[in-house]
Amino acid sequence: MAEGMLFTDFYELTMAQLYFKTGLYEKQAQFDYFFRNYPDYGSHKAGYCINAGLEWLIEWMRTARFGEGEIELLRGLKGHNGQPIFKEDFLSWLGKNGTFDGISIRAIPEGRVVHASVPVAQVQGPLVMAQVLESSFLNHLNYQTLIATKASRVRQAGCRNLTLEFGLRRGHHTGVNAGARAALIGGVDFSSNTGISCALGYPPKGTHAHSMVQAFMALGATELDAFRAYSEIYPDDCLFLVDTVNTLESGIPNAIRIFEDLRKKGHKPVGIRLDSGDLAHLCIQAAGMLNKAGFVDATILLSNQLDEMVIWQIIEQIKKEASDEGLDADSIIRRLAYGVGTRLITSEGNSSLDGVYKLTAVKENGRWLPAIKVSENPTKTINPGFKNVWRIYDSRGKATADLLALLDEKPDDEDTLKLHHPTESSTIRTLTKRQISQIEPLLVDVLKEGKLLHESPSIEEIRKLRDADLDKLDEGVKRLINPHIYHVSLTEKLWDLKQDLIRRQRS
Amino acid sequence: MAEGMLFTDFYELTMAQLYFKTGLYEKQAQFDYFFRNYPDYGSHKAGYCINAGLEWLIEWMRTARFGEGEIELLRGLKGHNGQPIFKEDFLSWLGKNGTFDGISIRAIPEGRVVHASVPVAQVQGPLVMAQVLESSFLNHLNYQTLIATKASRVRQAGCRNLTLEFGLRRGHHTGVNAGARAALIGGVDFSSNTGISCALGYPPKGTHAHSMVQAFMALGATELDAFRAYSEIYPDDCLFLVDTVNTLESGIPNAIRIFEDLRKKGHKPVGIRLDSGDLAHLCIQAAGMLNKAGFVDATILLSNQLDEMVIWQIIEQIKKEASDEGLDADSIIRRLAYGVGTRLITSEGNSSLDGVYKLTAVKENGRWLPAIKVSENPTKTINPGFKNVWRIYDSRGKATADLLALLDEKPDDEDTLKLHHPTESSTIRTLTKRQISQIEPLLVDVLKEGKLLHESPSIEEIRKLRDADLDKLDEGVKRLINPHIYHVSLTEKLWDLKQDLIRRQRS
Repeated sequence: MAEGMLFTDFYELTMAQLYFKTGLYEKQAQFDYFFRNYPDYGSHKAGYCINAGLEWLIEWMRTARFGEGEIELLRGLKGHNGQPIFKEDFLSWLGKNGTFDGISIRAIPEGRVVHASVPVAQVQGPLVMAQVLESSFLNHLNYQTLIATKASRVRQAGCRNLTLEFGLRRGHHTGVNAGARAALIGGVDFSSNTGISCALGYPPKGTHAHSMVQAFMALGATELDAFRAYSEIYPDDCLFLVDTVNTLESGIPNAIRIFEDLRKKGHKPVGIRLDSGDLAHLCIQAAGMLNKAGFVDATILLSNQLDEMVIWQIIEQIKKEASDEGLDADSIIRRLAYGVGTRLITSEGNSSLDGVYKLTAVKENGRWLPAIKVSENPTKTINPGFKNVWRIYDSRGKATADLLALLDEKPDDEDTLKLHHPTESSTIRTLTKRQISQIEPLLVDVLKEGKLLHESPSIEEIRKLRDADLDKLDEGVKRLINPHIYHVSLTEKLWDLKQDLIRRQRS
Repeated sequence: MAEGMLFTDFYELTMAQLYFKTGLYEKQAQFDYFFRNYPDYGSHKAGYCINAGLEWLIEWMRTARFGEGEIELLRGLKGHNGQPIFKEDFLSWLGKNGTFDGISIRAIPEGRVVHASVPVAQVQGPLVMAQVLESSFLNHLNYQTLIATKASRVRQAGCRNLTLEFGLRRGHHTGVNAGARAALIGGVDFSSNTGISCALGYPPKGTHAHSMVQAFMALGATELDAFRAYSEIYPDDCLFLVDTVNTLESGIPNAIRIFEDLRKKGHKPVGIRLDSGDLAHLCIQAAGMLNKAGFVDATILLSNQLDEMVIWQIIEQIKKEASDEGLDADSIIRRLAYGVGTRLITSEGNSSLDGVYKLTAVKENGRWLPAIKVSENPTKTINPGFKNVWRIYDSRGKATADLLALLDEKPDDEDTLKLHHPTESSTIRTLTKRQISQIEPLLVDVLKEGKLLHESPSIEEIRKLRDADLDKLDEGVKRLINPHIYHVSLTEKLWDLKQDLIRRQRS
């Protein structure tokens, strides 16, 4: 019950009754979903996001219902006067009509690079249900986009090496399942979360815990005995956690002894895992020891509070120190894999995306009337009305700006494009046709009055979209720290509409 | 499926098969759950936590099963050699025996103040299922304790005024339901999350959105029309969001006009909500305007990225500025209420609790053998063996230390108590009977071989435990910034056991 239709803020329902009672409920309305700011982790900041969450949102919308149970709970709620908050006529209407069957959604597909202030999705439908949708809509898209973005950064820092998501134990309850999906979309290869991995068709991955070695030791056996027992059951899947006793003096030598036995029997050891200490230093030592024993391919999996910054620093340290040990840094870096847990699944440093869902138009007598909310902070004033989003690629084929245009505009037909800064009146950038290699509309029809028009692609297909977009993104925008700000611009027509509405509301 | 028994890290299952295959699976084992550090939000830090999550964990344990679906998924998983990872004998055993019916849990009850390094829960049972339990166990307790703690701090900053949880839209997917529960336990009065509020027996709360006013305005009506329409439907529940157009020039005057109409008709307006701008300044202005119109009791609900620090600063500013407007600061502060969303539900600044689940003993031939993992970082070396936790209250009745003792020790019988620092050998505190008003054992038997011994108390009862504990906690420990470190100590016997095990492992 708590994850169905009532997975919403209470005010959506009191507003729904108001729209019902005032006869506004069948008025068509449009809401934009966008985020205002890229995640800012404190010492570092994202310059782009990876869009995620849409498929699960659509699934939720297609199954959420005001069933008898929901109506009964609402019927029991009392106001300050002790009377029921919801009247029977509204509840009866809600029981019959309270679905998202009238809702249409245009959205940028999952996996694509998305930017601040760009409408990532537009919702259209009867005011009452478009309003009721708000909270769950935001919940579904904000978190997955946040985590897909973090995962993309982690993958970028780790040079696209094998990366595993390990966050179940410290994430936010069942939210970790959405987090694992988003991480798979954004940048990790696999997750340790068994249930969601299986549900999504990815094999769950993992190693073993310190407790396994501890249990053997408490019973009078040794770390070597524990590794041997493991190798007998999983001879082709041995990735040993080597830091339970002492990494260099016990763990790695013991792992190598077992690896040698495995090799004799025709098995290929997978590698070792380092989970404490100076990971960069230990990595170099481990690589040296493994190489000496002839296990030059054995993976070195790193874990312990990793994120994109820590991974980057570890790699930098290896580059500086490897040669002191007579080793090639690049070959060490190539064999690294990463287990990234807490700091990925919670997006440590900035654990929420500030996505909002804002009314941009209402239809009256067959005409769409743009809505606006003027803020004292100009960047918080919304871009009104129906819009298309166009991505403009420069002559190198790199994305150079996202352009918000009114629905009837055709920027791909223009000889010269004027890109208006969203808040500063005098900042205009002009692009001629020669400077543009492609103009691509980003929004796709996903739902048309409840009917699914855009089948959700597989995660593999989503990852292809991600990689294609990341390849077309300037390195400056992808910088992990202090990224270059990607341009999000308005057409002149949209700029003029916005200024006009601001003037009208102020007067 | 993704929230049942397979809501676990994959390595728990591969270790489970190893324990099965090596015949260790029926060995009794004990794991301690504890967190190492209080949440550290960056510029501020917690000095205590509020324990939460136990009831949902127990519920999960009693329903999670290796059913046919789970077994089938596991059967399909392949290793590097293309062969099934899990063998049929293990899967068959798991299908029959893979429940938590053999597990016993002792734990500190929900709502109680808990401290770093103290075993908040102890799990005992057959090695294989006690290990499988780990990931979900941590997931259930870490997040709820994190949020209950944040909520307690928010309530403390807000002088225990009415506080509402508004975090659904930016929290971590369905994790927000656990977050809302934890917030209700830790310090908020109500939540806007409709489904979970109803499920827990609390009325969901809320106001209305900017979009309501915007919709009216887009249709040619005014903010006043929107407020009036709302007041006609909810005459006794009017709490108006006054910042859609202009707080001081439009929102508050319009609210007051409607309030005056309501008063004439015998209704009592609830208040206003401020969601942008300088909240402290606007609060004072709003209080002045409401007072002048005779609405001295009307609530002023504040929202917009609030947390304990922002609330504290707003109150401080009101104390300084209220008199400039000829108003009494205290009477303004008393009428405030708080809507706390994102920064509560995600515990912004530190979005995870570092709780761990560590093997502390294994039984062999009827004897419990303590287990230890020695870390190079002494504070990470676990406290071994079976333990009791005693809370010691000083002569003022304030909690002065939590004492970890071996199971057979009776610190309440001692004339003089020696409290050993957990890592520094020479730091010992001595307390005589005269200095102690009470010694209280904190761990309660919750599950005994799967049987529930401790019925989960209601949230109201949990809140009473919380308040009683907070009243007995020194103000220094409750300080929002740089709190005094509460003492967590070992008895001499436990200290000696730990040193002995460290020596033995090192040799």
